[in-house]
Amino acid sequence: MSDDVMGEARREPPPGFVNVDWTRGFGRQVGPLFRKDEGGRRTMGLFVEEHHTNGMRNAHGGLLMTLADMAWGNVVSMERSMFWVTVRLTCDFLSGAQAGEWIEAGGTLVADEDDLFVVQGRVWCAERQLVSGTGVFKAIKPREPRPGEKAFAAAGA
Amino acid sequence: MSDDVMGEARREPPPGFVNVDWTRGFGRQVGPLFRKDEGGRRTMGLFVEEHHTNGMRNAHGGLLMTLADMAWGNVVSMERSMFWVTVRLTCDFLSGAQAGEWIEAGGTLVADEDDLFVVQGRVWCAERQLVSGTGVFKAIKPREPRPGEKAFAAAGA
Repeated sequence: MSDDVMGEARREPPPGFVNVDWTRGFGRQVGPLFRKDEGGRRTMGLFVEEHHTNGMRNAHGGLLMTLADMAWGNVVSMERSMFWVTVRLTCDFLSGAQAGEWIEAGGTLVADEDDLFVVQGRVWCAERQLVSGTGVFKAIKPREPRPGEKAFAAAGA
Repeated sequence: MSDDVMGEARREPPPGFVNVDWTRGFGRQVGPLFRKDEGGRRTMGLFVEEHHTNGMRNAHGGLLMTLADMAWGNVVSMERSMFWVTVRLTCDFLSGAQAGEWIEAGGTLVADEDDLFVVQGRVWCAERQLVSGTGVFKAIKPREPRPGEKAFAAAGA
């Protein structure tokens, strides 16, 4: 085991996933993170690495919630191309993931009223469910649609 | 702004706080983290740094939830000196914190039945409440009491 994060093994993500390439902030700190956009849905994923683990060498709950927050909130991005903030996040921890495993997260928009979006989401590892929960997100303002988002696809059609 | 995390300014925490000194894993990755034990209660704190921030240069929700998870779960450590895992965490985001601000987190044990502990917790920045919420933790097994914990103080008395 090495404390040198940059020295950890780099693996290729599953087909279709691309590196999110956050160059700063907490997104960079918890990376590398990957995403796959397909049919207007975004899945985010990462390999659990040494720098993601808790004292039991499993993915830290804080990491799983961070991934959930990003992936579930991104449903608002995909559906509406708006900036958003998290209002409430509820996570039920069902199972753990070990260093070296590939985990993914995504969600479904279940309600949308007065700029409050409710997303039901999951974090999983192959067939194993790690987290299920609900995110409430507040849309702040519209922005230009970005690649992969529904409005981007519509504008380009 | 520098991407070199170790090059960021290091400030002294408020009186009574000591560096948690995690040398590995997610605890190290999201650090530096500090804690203060007083009268059987533990408060955890950190300076919001560049590597903790979201796109708006505020403390990332994932960071706040990570701090909440650690600080609220530590109530079980302090009260019962047991290993624990997180079962459910609910966080309401009330306000943000900017880079450079000092934030703290702590909680109160409100229920304890069948090795399930319920903690009501907060994350705050001076007088400003950032997060309020509830954590449900499952105690896995007893361990030797550590400094600051109630059982440690009792054993030493």
